[in-house]
Amino acid sequence: MKVIHVSTRARSEMVPITAPVQDAVREAGIEDGLVMVFVPHTTAGITINEQADPDVAADIIHTLDRLVPWNGPYAHEEGNAAAHVKATLVGSSVMVPVAQGRLCLGTWQGIFLCEFDGPRSRQVWVSVMGPSRAK
Amino acid sequence: MKVIHVSTRARSEMVPITAPVQDAVREAGIEDGLVMVFVPHTTAGITINEQADPDVAADIIHTLDRLVPWNGPYAHEEGNAAAHVKATLVGSSVMVPVAQGRLCLGTWQGIFLCEFDGPRSRQVWVSVMGPSRAK
Amino acid sequence: MKVIHVSTRARSEMVPITAPVQDAVREAGIEDGLVMVFVPHTTAGITINEQADPDVAADIIHTLDRLVPWNGPYAHEEGNAAAHVKATLVGSSVMVPVAQGRLCLGTWQGIFLCEFDGPRSRQVWVSVMGPSRAK
Repeated sequence: MKVIHVSTRARSEMVPITAPVQDAVREAGIEDGLVMVFVPHTTAGITINEQADPDVAADIIHTLDRLVPWNGPYAHEEGNAAAHVKATLVGSSVMVPVAQGRLCLGTWQGIFLCEFDGPRSRQVWVSVMGPSRAK
Repeated sequence: MKVIHVSTRARSEMVPITAPVQDAVREAGIEDGLVMVFVPHTTAGITINEQADPDVAADIIHTLDRLVPWNGPYAHEEGNAAAHVKATLVGSSVMVPVAQGRLCLGTWQGIFLCEFDGPRSRQVWVSVMGPSRAK
Repeated sequence: MKVIHVSTRARSEMVPITAPVQDAVREAGIEDGLVMVFVPHTTAGITINEQADPDVAADIIHTLDRLVPWNGPYAHEEGNAAAHVKATLVGSSVMVPVAQGRLCLGTWQGIFLCEFDGPRSRQVWVSVMGPSRAK
């Protein structure tokens, strides 16, 4: 398992991590398989979406803020309940195929750490698994 | 990795793909393991839900349209920001157990490609992994 | 594949299942790899979030109820359309890394079965996969 360290800069933002995940896949030396990208935090998530236009990430962040506003009738007393809810909506991991030692992503896809309660120092855990070659 | 081709017919719809995923699992020749069903697009998703009553898929599509309307104060200029947001809410892949060479789904579960910016020609990538038999 | 049985007690609730998942990982005898926690139902989900303060789970349940109310203009005639929609928003599985025979979770993370149409008897399927050791 490879650990990627990410310093986030805003309360809510999406940070592209495709390049360091690709590095972890290369280092793992797996030819064909899967990679899991996992965030060990409860107020952050991992998603795949368009990386070419940063407006896409901004729209995702703003829509989540509208659906799950920071202030609301929440029970959790730390003041970051909205961040926990968003973490569950987005999810704590993504899986991506690996072929010929490289991430298999669609043309427009990138992998993002979603920060919902920053700025903070975050970790992302990358696990690469080689499968049966029985294809 | 097996590629499934899906031609979607509406701007938003859920297309059942359980049968071709089952075919890919069979062809992979894996006895026990996992299958990943991955969509390499940023305005589509993959989900598992009830396949018996198509009204369930319609309710999911309509609820997502209500939560993330097509027209809104989005920054992304291509006009399909809502589709990108829905892709992140639904997710880009599902994982399903495989046992005895078959998908292990619950009685009512089916696998769906979720089209959020169609109609388009879409791909679904199916990766089957055989695990350790150390059970 | 190990089956965990959960009896839910409310229409909507999050039931912590970290301990039985950890037991399944231990029993599988896998040193390093991944575990998939999968729910074979279409009106329930699996998520990872904070387990220390039960208010976090309550906030997630209440926010989902606000976003996807039980009564609405749904087509599905069984009366539980909202539960199906929530299942797709939350997702049917989570993946967690396994190292040294143990679940690798962040300090605050726990695994939950999300019941959206209870009370019911539910199953959770746990599959542990040992990866290539090529790290």
